Amino acid sequence: MIYADNAATTKMSPRAIETMVSLMNETFGNPSSLYTIGQRAKEVLEQARKDVAEVIGADPKEILFTSGGSEADNQAIISAAKIGARKGKKHIISSAFEHHAVLHTLEKLKKEGYDVTLLDVHEDGLVRPEELEAAIREDTCLVTIMYANNEIGTIQPIREIGAICRKHGVLFHTDAVQAIAHVPVNVADDNIDLLSSSAHKFHGPKGVGFLYAKKGVLLSNLIEGGAQERGKRAGTENVPGIAAMAAALKEAAEHLEENSEKLKKRRDQLIAGLREIPHSALNGHETKRLPGNVNFCFEGIEGESLLLLLDDKGISASSGSACTSGSLDPSHVLLAIGRVHDVAHGSLRLTLGEDVTEEQVDEIIQSVKEVVEYLRSFSPIWRDLMAGKKPFIL
Amino acid sequence: MIYADNAATTKMSPRAIETMVSLMNETFGNPSSLYTIGQRAKEVLEQARKDVAEVIGADPKEILFTSGGSEADNQAIISAAKIGARKGKKHIISSAFEHHAVLHTLEKLKKEGYDVTLLDVHEDGLVRPEELEAAIREDTCLVTIMYANNEIGTIQPIREIGAICRKHGVLFHTDAVQAIAHVPVNVADDNIDLLSSSAHKFHGPKGVGFLYAKKGVLLSNLIEGGAQERGKRAGTENVPGIAAMAAALKEAAEHLEENSEKLKKRRDQLIAGLREIPHSALNGHETKRLPGNVNFCFEGIEGESLLLLLDDKGISASSGSACTSGSLDPSHVLLAIGRVHDVAHGSLRLTLGEDVTEEQVDEIIQSVKEVVEYLRSFSPIWRDLMAGKKPFIL
Repeated sequence: MIYADNAATTKMSPRAIETMVSLMNETFGNPSSLYTIGQRAKEVLEQARKDVAEVIGADPKEILFTSGGSEADNQAIISAAKIGARKGKKHIISSAFEHHAVLHTLEKLKKEGYDVTLLDVHEDGLVRPEELEAAIREDTCLVTIMYANNEIGTIQPIREIGAICRKHGVLFHTDAVQAIAHVPVNVADDNIDLLSSSAHKFHGPKGVGFLYAKKGVLLSNLIEGGAQERGKRAGTENVPGIAAMAAALKEAAEHLEENSEKLKKRRDQLIAGLREIPHSALNGHETKRLPGNVNFCFEGIEGESLLLLLDDKGISASSGSACTSGSLDPSHVLLAIGRVHDVAHGSLRLTLGEDVTEEQVDEIIQSVKEVVEYLRSFSPIWRDLMAGKKPFIL
Repeated sequence: MIYADNAATTKMSPRAIETMVSLMNETFGNPSSLYTIGQRAKEVLEQARKDVAEVIGADPKEILFTSGGSEADNQAIISAAKIGARKGKKHIISSAFEHHAVLHTLEKLKKEGYDVTLLDVHEDGLVRPEELEAAIREDTCLVTIMYANNEIGTIQPIREIGAICRKHGVLFHTDAVQAIAHVPVNVADDNIDLLSSSAHKFHGPKGVGFLYAKKGVLLSNLIEGGAQERGKRAGTENVPGIAAMAAALKEAAEHLEENSEKLKKRRDQLIAGLREIPHSALNGHETKRLPGNVNFCFEGIEGESLLLLLDDKGISASSGSACTSGSLDPSHVLLAIGRVHDVAHGSLRLTLGEDVTEEQVDEIIQSVKEVVEYLRSFSPIWRDLMAGKKPFIL
């Protein structure tokens, strides 16, 4: 089996699993408890906070543990919106191809009277800093732009975006769920005020994430209750999960450069191979993308069949975000970069894991070629295209 | 070591840990993914939903997985409040000794114009159904009363409360975090519309819980984003954690009766033993309480020292809720049952685990006796009490 859907979720690293199991067995205390086993859990929790903070260049006090990336996105955006509202500022800038955890939260805020501007991400899947700067108004309270896109993997000019926000005194949040542990992220260098992350995207456990909030950025609670997480996120801390996340993050950070170099080679090998398929196109910028991300459109076929046939060949891939896979609508990300409906339907996302080999990538290329050819052999759209009844787009 | 703080958190059962580890290793797919390993995760998720539903007498479609009890409480109450607001009903009834996940959510709603009535829980820690009925108004949209209290363990007349709510067409939510898997709970028999639960209180993992919402009760999203959990709770599902919760819950349900009988014996043994300490008193009703819960006040001493000295003797106990242990204020629960500040400060909660032995309970009794005597030996308050300068309360 070749698992090529690491943007959907990753397999936990043995180190992360070991960390988790050892804590579940031995350090099960509630970190709020005064006795030894509680205090030991508290130490583990605070060590994890230090470890996470160190990887992204933050202070441990700036790290809040959540149940995942979606919760972190929701809390970050709502907090910034409330800070804005208190100053009479209710304009938010984002982009058209954000994750739904961002877009749906913005929809909710629109109903509460906020005004939202969605920046164009152009054909290459990149926000233009000058367009962002032009969109900033007197009443702009927040810019929220994802670090790297979850479908096409394009990496935004985050540092420039952050610098523009800082210059204009606007809070900057980035959904870094796909970026953390895959590309170097430093909240200070990148001028980030709020950042969301999720453990299961970097070989940590599901159900755990973190929110970085720069000192002085007052968070609003999404979950009210006990005084955990400095009173900003109630609920008994998931100590084993949090420590496993920190272990996975440290591990990824230690190997980031080598993994990145290796993955880029495999990614470019895969891109070159899939380009040999006629009437295909890479989605998103060719190099300004995550090291392991490949996303293609193939004209004349339908994404779901492609996935099922690849699955039969032992290859796990997706057509886009797992979060919306139940939906029949084409990807909002592909539409945002200008793909028309027909083409967007025939998309394939392959997100490689660090352990993928050159031979496996060759196998993926061969399998995709076979499946695309097979599907086209009985596709009425493809027949029309070949007969010249419809023009090719790609 | 004797761990006697099972209301704060429990040690995971070996079965729950095994379930979790096996899934983390083998079924790591995203349940929203179409390929085999994703669909296998989806099956595990839906089986867990069936298992949880069965234990509480619900339909699987009525179970929503959350990151824990606090999130479930928040979502339940906010959902019911919004349902009420749409009908122009903005009055909520609760009790004075609810968990802070409930009380703080109600505080938030008060700022949004909701009116909240907190029922008296009397000296025995029990809500009176007739007082609840009298408090219901034309504009009451929600009654939220906890199933069993987290500090003093008193079990509310939930079935009667539910029946009254149903009679008056008012939604009924219960925070059942302390009750599920410890006393028989059936949402149909108990007339419950919304129920919150947390896995780590019944030997499941931390960071996982569930919300039961009766068919027809429209939930509002706390976390916006992907279409997981029927569109009502975004974020990749924590499949290993959820399955481990279901495993722990099934296990607890299978042994509920025998564990309950055994624990009640140990509890009553402990109560009898601690009563021998002069100027002490049990908090809460003697029998209408959780099988493993004992909560005492000792006059003339200070709870925190008691806990630290018991910890030295290898006994893990608490003065009240772990969620507020950082606070110097006396327990709001003990104040609600009429304990004065001085006495409430000298409280001790011992919550026994199913594997506790008669000998261990004797050891707890002996240790508490020694520690109370020792602390009183140099307590100025105790000296004043003994000298008749202040009257004894207990």
